[in-house]
Amino acid sequence: MALAEGIEQGRLALRMINPAPFNAEAPPEALAGPITPNELHYVRSNFAVPVHDGTLEIGGAVGNPLTLTLDDLRALPATERAVTLECAGNGRLEMRPLPIGEPWGDFAVSTARWTGALLHQVLQLARPAADGVDVRFEGADHGAYHLKPVLAETDKDDLTFVRALPLAHASDPAAEILIAYEMNGAPLGSDHGAPFRVVVPHWYAVASVKWLKRIDVLTEPYTGEFQTGHYLYEWPDRPAEAVSLMRVRARITHPAPASTVNVGKHTVRGKAWSGTGPVTRVEVSLTGEGEWYLANLEPPEGPYQWQDWSFEWNATDVGRHTLRARATDAAGNVQPEVPPWNRLGYGNNAVEVPYVDVR
Amino acid sequence: MALAEGIEQGRLALRMINPAPFNAEAPPEALAGPITPNELHYVRSNFAVPVHDGTLEIGGAVGNPLTLTLDDLRALPATERAVTLECAGNGRLEMRPLPIGEPWGDFAVSTARWTGALLHQVLQLARPAADGVDVRFEGADHGAYHLKPVLAETDKDDLTFVRALPLAHASDPAAEILIAYEMNGAPLGSDHGAPFRVVVPHWYAVASVKWLKRIDVLTEPYTGEFQTGHYLYEWPDRPAEAVSLMRVRARITHPAPASTVNVGKHTVRGKAWSGTGPVTRVEVSLTGEGEWYLANLEPPEGPYQWQDWSFEWNATDVGRHTLRARATDAAGNVQPEVPPWNRLGYGNNAVEVPYVDVR
Repeated sequence: MALAEGIEQGRLALRMINPAPFNAEAPPEALAGPITPNELHYVRSNFAVPVHDGTLEIGGAVGNPLTLTLDDLRALPATERAVTLECAGNGRLEMRPLPIGEPWGDFAVSTARWTGALLHQVLQLARPAADGVDVRFEGADHGAYHLKPVLAETDKDDLTFVRALPLAHASDPAAEILIAYEMNGAPLGSDHGAPFRVVVPHWYAVASVKWLKRIDVLTEPYTGEFQTGHYLYEWPDRPAEAVSLMRVRARITHPAPASTVNVGKHTVRGKAWSGTGPVTRVEVSLTGEGEWYLANLEPPEGPYQWQDWSFEWNATDVGRHTLRARATDAAGNVQPEVPPWNRLGYGNNAVEVPYVDVR
Repeated sequence: MALAEGIEQGRLALRMINPAPFNAEAPPEALAGPITPNELHYVRSNFAVPVHDGTLEIGGAVGNPLTLTLDDLRALPATERAVTLECAGNGRLEMRPLPIGEPWGDFAVSTARWTGALLHQVLQLARPAADGVDVRFEGADHGAYHLKPVLAETDKDDLTFVRALPLAHASDPAAEILIAYEMNGAPLGSDHGAPFRVVVPHWYAVASVKWLKRIDVLTEPYTGEFQTGHYLYEWPDRPAEAVSLMRVRARITHPAPASTVNVGKHTVRGKAWSGTGPVTRVEVSLTGEGEWYLANLEPPEGPYQWQDWSFEWNATDVGRHTLRARATDAAGNVQPEVPPWNRLGYGNNAVEVPYVDVR
């Protein structure tokens, strides 16, 4: 019962999307500060919280198979990075037609400080084979799996959550991929992958396997339900692509959507992030088809976390006003104005259109 | 001051979009009953409430030009019809990219009982010329006109609100177009076109000219700002079309969007309407890409008013649920799942995607 009560405690402040497996959005206040408190961090799970025996097996095409414990990981050099994680399905509710899948609004995004061992160092210990291609990460979580409504081909009686990364990326020191065991200074909670999980900066969070149980180096590209069956952009008009880096996006955090504010000066605030380079520009528009004005953009506090931006808005006219924010990143990616529809509803980074009523 | 106070009184319950000219949505409760109380009926104006001298001129290509007063109109046979009026821009906020124009949500729709003289009888009195083509309706409202942001070609110093209908339609007894002087049994309020206005059943409300001042029979097709300059569907991929009949649409009125309800049975309720025939079917879907279930649809209480529908929903699972309603009308028109984008954002009748959280 202690575990169950602990889970419940950590879930109360979230906006639940699905109870089993537990999926929940962050509340709006989670986006106010630079770091999301653990109890406000969104949760995405494909299966129920599993029993984990506390060990991590590393095998496959390696010269030195290993079994590591939490203590072994803690004995390695510790790295702490603030990382913005966003669910690939975040914003699905804005897509038309509405795709299948968890009905995420726009709050499946949070930023925590993750502490752990560097994946590339752990891999070095295991000595990947020269002909290694992919690294396969297996979670302890598993169970019956189907999307609602049931698609026959994905209706599995017992499936385990597995994802892979290219070996070149997984073993790149510059990628700073973590096997994390702390979240904001505390041991990982059960909803966030205790005792340890992968954290892949810049990627949609599906790559950040929770409840990590096994790592295998593969000499063939990995195929599997969560790699090549789902988490694909199935575009209507071009070949499917794998979900990988987070698409550039800005959100307005203040004033709240559909709120009422008084005539006068207001600071519009928000967050912006991208998996393809720091955000270099945020613009704000106050009407449909209107001009875009440059917002004040804070430089990134770290390489993997959202940035703050603000815009001084002089609300002189009573009535309804739309407030749109649009981000551009260093790679030149700009948010589209129309959600980039794909069958399973991933990667919606379209400019949002909240309104505010001025009185 | 009495007039100004009266205006203010009648506006308090609405959700203002623009103070000048006054535009305001109905509150959600306005859609609960079959008839919208006057103080909850949405208001769409292109110019400020005008001074009206109480007379209606009827001229142009007619054999018997007339000047009628309110008493003259009241002396003609009175007809009462419940008519659902919807702004052509209703739902504009859901379109992507966001079009220019008033940022209407989805509550620029209401239903009132309008009482007045039948337009075809009034026209008969004036004896339209045999070569008449259009009937031009001029409101008393006028002023400087521009869309924000200013489009040079529509920036006019003094423009009067004018619309036209084909003479064949205006003089058709079956069309039952009214020159209305009562709304739900009370004299028209200033925001609704006092002392009299046109009410054109089945058409987007732009055709229902308020503060009616002149009627002219024309022997050439009418062109003008509100007929051939705006209120056009400017499609991205095909020729522009005039805004005319209301497109088929269903809305969910209960439970409220983003509300929380308990596990158990709930009656989902809503309204459905169409300008192209009675609504013949409403279906409800509970997930993305899911099945559509037939709702209970009430027969129309009259030929021009929205219909009630309901759906018994057994909410057995806690978590977030989308609730979508889709209407089909007697002409076979079905709501699209993607907003039918056009440059000025008219006629959005796409299936809406509200969600409800079950606890």
